[in-house]
Amino acid sequence: MKINSAFDALPKSYVFARLAEKVAAAKKTFCGRIIDLGVGDVKLPLPEIFVREMKLAADEMQNAETFRGYPPTGGYPFLREAIANKYLEDGANISPDEIFVSDGAKSELGNVAELFERGIKVLFAAPCYPAGAEANVILGNDVEFLHATSEDGFIPAPPYGKTYDLIYLCSPNNPTGATFSYRELKAWVDYALSANAVIVYDGAYSSYVSGDKPKTVYAVPYADRCAIEIRSFSKSLGFTGIRVGFTVVPKNLGRLNALWKRRLGARFNGVSYISQRGAAAAFTPLGKKETEKRVNFYKTNASILKIAFQNRKIWYNNTCCSPYVYARCPDGMTSEEFSDLVLTKAGICCTPSSGFAGKENFVRFSAFALREDVTEAADRIEKLIF
Amino acid sequence: MKINSAFDALPKSYVFARLAEKVAAAKKTFCGRIIDLGVGDVKLPLPEIFVREMKLAADEMQNAETFRGYPPTGGYPFLREAIANKYLEDGANISPDEIFVSDGAKSELGNVAELFERGIKVLFAAPCYPAGAEANVILGNDVEFLHATSEDGFIPAPPYGKTYDLIYLCSPNNPTGATFSYRELKAWVDYALSANAVIVYDGAYSSYVSGDKPKTVYAVPYADRCAIEIRSFSKSLGFTGIRVGFTVVPKNLGRLNALWKRRLGARFNGVSYISQRGAAAAFTPLGKKETEKRVNFYKTNASILKIAFQNRKIWYNNTCCSPYVYARCPDGMTSEEFSDLVLTKAGICCTPSSGFAGKENFVRFSAFALREDVTEAADRIEKLIF
Repeated sequence: MKINSAFDALPKSYVFARLAEKVAAAKKTFCGRIIDLGVGDVKLPLPEIFVREMKLAADEMQNAETFRGYPPTGGYPFLREAIANKYLEDGANISPDEIFVSDGAKSELGNVAELFERGIKVLFAAPCYPAGAEANVILGNDVEFLHATSEDGFIPAPPYGKTYDLIYLCSPNNPTGATFSYRELKAWVDYALSANAVIVYDGAYSSYVSGDKPKTVYAVPYADRCAIEIRSFSKSLGFTGIRVGFTVVPKNLGRLNALWKRRLGARFNGVSYISQRGAAAAFTPLGKKETEKRVNFYKTNASILKIAFQNRKIWYNNTCCSPYVYARCPDGMTSEEFSDLVLTKAGICCTPSSGFAGKENFVRFSAFALREDVTEAADRIEKLIF
Repeated sequence: MKINSAFDALPKSYVFARLAEKVAAAKKTFCGRIIDLGVGDVKLPLPEIFVREMKLAADEMQNAETFRGYPPTGGYPFLREAIANKYLEDGANISPDEIFVSDGAKSELGNVAELFERGIKVLFAAPCYPAGAEANVILGNDVEFLHATSEDGFIPAPPYGKTYDLIYLCSPNNPTGATFSYRELKAWVDYALSANAVIVYDGAYSSYVSGDKPKTVYAVPYADRCAIEIRSFSKSLGFTGIRVGFTVVPKNLGRLNALWKRRLGARFNGVSYISQRGAAAAFTPLGKKETEKRVNFYKTNASILKIAFQNRKIWYNNTCCSPYVYARCPDGMTSEEFSDLVLTKAGICCTPSSGFAGKENFVRFSAFALREDVTEAADRIEKLIF
């Protein structure tokens, strides 16, 4: 049996699977309830408008006249068109046939690499969400990390003078929350264009962008000649359990748009009609309002956590645009040590930076939580002895 | 840009995408309505029990107490356990942690190949559904076809004396309808065990098996030491638009069970809770009855088509266990010629065997249609001049 030896290069289990094991163990020993600020999983229930749309879609499946079989390749036009309109609002001109509905960002971070040769050089601006890098390792690519530092707020500068085939950027960044300004993002686009590299832009948290920072890589001129953008409805609509996202492969990216369609033909059969109908409701006036409410709720959670860190003189990456708080480990502790301490002594699960290829010792606190859990967690942090 | 050159080895578009283009063209010229017996897409609406479950699941998403975020890796226990119980009924002992809920069979046919080295030798018993072979080409594997013939009812015998790393079998076969007997399947399992090959068993149509033929590869002793089974709810429950299937990776398959879990961690975030709840309803007494009704309905459709072929003296592969009728092209026509003729002269879309790596000239008629369409198609076939 010729097993893919690339698996040996991965950590034995996925970071959030390891975390789940630790939480299970802590539940047996910690006196009190465990507050999960580990996995970035939304906690607010879905607003009525999304549920209503999904139930209407389910009803349609019960009638011969409105029943739907295989979804069209790339997704239903009603959803692709709504997304294209949203791009226009965000200052980018993307047509529906450049938008491909997906089952979420995680799968797509790996899937897009299949468009390229095996063994290509792939750069990840780190710290970063691990799925994309792990998928590239499994696929046999040569993965490198560019380590952004806390000194420059985890905003990495392009690696001038070096060349890569594929470059993964995430903004707002998971885990650091760092968010590119227009100028910073333009530097990357210009670099990619000059170095003939393709940017994979992970915009899973784009709905958390505020102020004048770009919500999409395509806000930068000519980005459609060098960038694929991967988005998700998980963190905006609360769709982690519904599974819808989309991937933009512009027609200006040479053959890639056609090849992506070709790949979907062979490798994918689309996303549930019910899920797509739910996602489309996000673009109605009420859907937009509900999405905004949720984003603001989780951002307020982040602010509550930040105050606790300020009071404990723990440095964190201060950003306006993220549902995560990335906090420096105190007293020279490693990220594993500090996250274990926070779990066993305060009953709070957070994620060590080691799970994000972080070079400095940080932990990520997810603000995707109910308010009472966040205030309780903030309280426990204030009292934690270390 | 180092584009994956393997795409150049594929037909320019996926077979059913080509078919859709032909149908669109025929709609402009054919006088009358086009009957689509091309893509094997179900047409009966979903029974109330599945829709009701999905709506209840959607309702749960609206309440904080019952809201669900990321699905557990491998799927919800309620669905994995129900599937394991069904395996027991079918004479196989598979535990829930060997069952992994997927978004359908098509994706998984390619995904499982990622467990193995690049460049492995992969055998497809042909004719076959093209997605698995195309995915292996994209992944850089060495794909060979073993051509079963109409003389032996398209039941291939193992390639004794040759070795392969991965062997794809499909029973009931898409497109031919050929279904392994226990003895025939055992020969393949014994061969795989002796040749140290892994069988990828595509059981997407297993609910169409009747009589004493095996419904799963695991009905054969020791198959859990050499076989991965891929199943789907698409053709049994009518879930082509809902997207649920499952993949069995037995723990007796060495490291593969653990590696598959590892792959899911990096590459997939699970299937919609709503879809999983709908699928679980299939295992209730009413769900079983409704599934059976649908399977019988489509089988009756196939019988109606077969009568038309008998009357026209067109040979077809007579099998009791399939929603497809695989019919030989008359008068030495190629499969493309005959399918074009059937489309342009009779307004019936069918799929040429060239799309299934078929060596003999056949066309596949899908019986996934409403009754009036099938009787009308049978009528047109009886009158067709060729």
